[in-house]
Amino acid sequence: MVNGLTGEDDIIARYFAPLAGEGANALRDDCAVFEAPPDRRVVVTLDTLVADVHFFADDPPEDIARKALRVNLSDLAGKGATPFGYLLSLSLNEGWTAGWLEAFASGLACDQKTFGCSLLGGDTTRTPGPLTLSVTAFGHTAAETPPRREMAKPGERLFVTGTVGDAGLGLLLRQTPELTGCWGLTDAERDHLLERYRVPQPRMGVVQTLGRLLGGAMDISDGLALDSSRMGLVSGTTPVLLLDRLPLSTAARTALSQDPALIMPIVSGGDDYELLFSSSAEAGTLAQAVRGCDVSITEIGYLQDGAGAARLIDAKGQSLDLDHTGYRHF
Amino acid sequence: MVNGLTGEDDIIARYFAPLAGEGANALRDDCAVFEAPPDRRVVVTLDTLVADVHFFADDPPEDIARKALRVNLSDLAGKGATPFGYLLSLSLNEGWTAGWLEAFASGLACDQKTFGCSLLGGDTTRTPGPLTLSVTAFGHTAAETPPRREMAKPGERLFVTGTVGDAGLGLLLRQTPELTGCWGLTDAERDHLLERYRVPQPRMGVVQTLGRLLGGAMDISDGLALDSSRMGLVSGTTPVLLLDRLPLSTAARTALSQDPALIMPIVSGGDDYELLFSSSAEAGTLAQAVRGCDVSITEIGYLQDGAGAARLIDAKGQSLDLDHTGYRHF
Repeated sequence: MVNGLTGEDDIIARYFAPLAGEGANALRDDCAVFEAPPDRRVVVTLDTLVADVHFFADDPPEDIARKALRVNLSDLAGKGATPFGYLLSLSLNEGWTAGWLEAFASGLACDQKTFGCSLLGGDTTRTPGPLTLSVTAFGHTAAETPPRREMAKPGERLFVTGTVGDAGLGLLLRQTPELTGCWGLTDAERDHLLERYRVPQPRMGVVQTLGRLLGGAMDISDGLALDSSRMGLVSGTTPVLLLDRLPLSTAARTALSQDPALIMPIVSGGDDYELLFSSSAEAGTLAQAVRGCDVSITEIGYLQDGAGAARLIDAKGQSLDLDHTGYRHF
Repeated sequence: MVNGLTGEDDIIARYFAPLAGEGANALRDDCAVFEAPPDRRVVVTLDTLVADVHFFADDPPEDIARKALRVNLSDLAGKGATPFGYLLSLSLNEGWTAGWLEAFASGLACDQKTFGCSLLGGDTTRTPGPLTLSVTAFGHTAAETPPRREMAKPGERLFVTGTVGDAGLGLLLRQTPELTGCWGLTDAERDHLLERYRVPQPRMGVVQTLGRLLGGAMDISDGLALDSSRMGLVSGTTPVLLLDRLPLSTAARTALSQDPALIMPIVSGGDDYELLFSSSAEAGTLAQAVRGCDVSITEIGYLQDGAGAARLIDAKGQSLDLDHTGYRHF
């Protein structure tokens, strides 16, 4: 208690007020107030992360902060929205320390610069349960109708950005460190996979750049198989995923060559935070269009007519059964 | 798993999609997209509620839902904003059932009608900890600078809406039911206090109606003493609260007459969700202005020059020491 105020007021003033942006009034009020830029629409999204469900409680606090922000920025990326702010709900359990909060805030400060957004407000509470974070992220877009999953059409090609499966493998490594040896990974390869799980890389700017070349678009958070199924089911299409076309990191290739069964966590593991989109354009046209975006685009299949869950086709043209199709929250 | 989708998809489709409003695209995407009405600013706020910290896990699910929404609407009320939508983060623990979710969603549906807002999106996760809800609420306002706590000025009178202390007493009753007898309450009085804790009544429209008559304004969520201190500290004033002026319900008066020490939970208990504001106008002028708002306004003190925590003055003009000044989250 300082000046009759509480620990919550102290935490806000010390750690979070320095992160506050325009409209947040230095977090001195309960609400933020902003105007959307002229002729732009506001895009909002909310994702919640629970310790030991979505991240590890003993991950570096900087990375926990960055993951909480970035999974939301990835949703905005899927809509082609430009981020400008976020609200943070932080439910702290007994274990927090000043050092932890300082590192957590420094992770946010770092990513605010990287992604051009600032803290608009939020809530800090205590919880008897695990550390829990909710971020509400705000972006803006010029598009009257930003891309939606349901805009995918039969006959379109399917594409992803970057590489898939790294985070799913990274989670397995985090849970069972001995796998590094079984998979024949170098230290650098192991670290790459762990890092991809811990700190997602939202693919900002790709959707804006591709514009009318796009059909449906979304980010992949719960695994390629499940999220492409979601796109299929709302758009009346069935995604056909050609497994030998999947873009894999060197680390994922090394692991897969040791254990071919890893194709399952690669297509069904969560936390990729790459973009999935459909297009009637050819791969070369799209690659040309995103030259400036610093991310690769790979054609991984196509959309058949009729709503259905993703079909996985291996290099021999055989259909693979999915033992599970994605990260299941329940 | 239905159609390759998960329990989360089922929950969203079954319970939450029917609540979705314009811009939410029936919750089929990760993001909502909206345009602020022309010449209006967007006001956003976020509050998190943790079971057995902010409500009781065995409260009726309808009421848990309504409280989560209403504490946020109360923040918007403090800014004079008109609500239009909200995002919901629901972290469910093992104990949830279909019946619970159905009742929870019906509470939201009810309040959406009452307050003219709709669900824009959110996130449903599981948690090994207590049920946790975060709501981000959206409103709009015509005011270029909506009222802030810091706009309060020395010499202004202090006012509150409705009655204070009911929820704080309601919480004590919920924790120790035998107090009903000690306080000499009728069943109706007991139920009134319990209800005031369980389902707040945000005072929409008052701030808009008072407009330029207002100095500083905020909602009271952590107790009159603490929240008025917060107003004082950011506005360079010291709130002087005249305890015999506080507007009390019949139930609170009955209890206080049995136990004068209850003045402390009345001024320092949380969950009032009334509005606190300062004004240089007289009480009669304000009462006249809010005739149509269906809520009373009471003058409870004034603001002295110089930043300071609230001073409590009893009927004899004596200063009371606060053993604690409000709901402390930490």
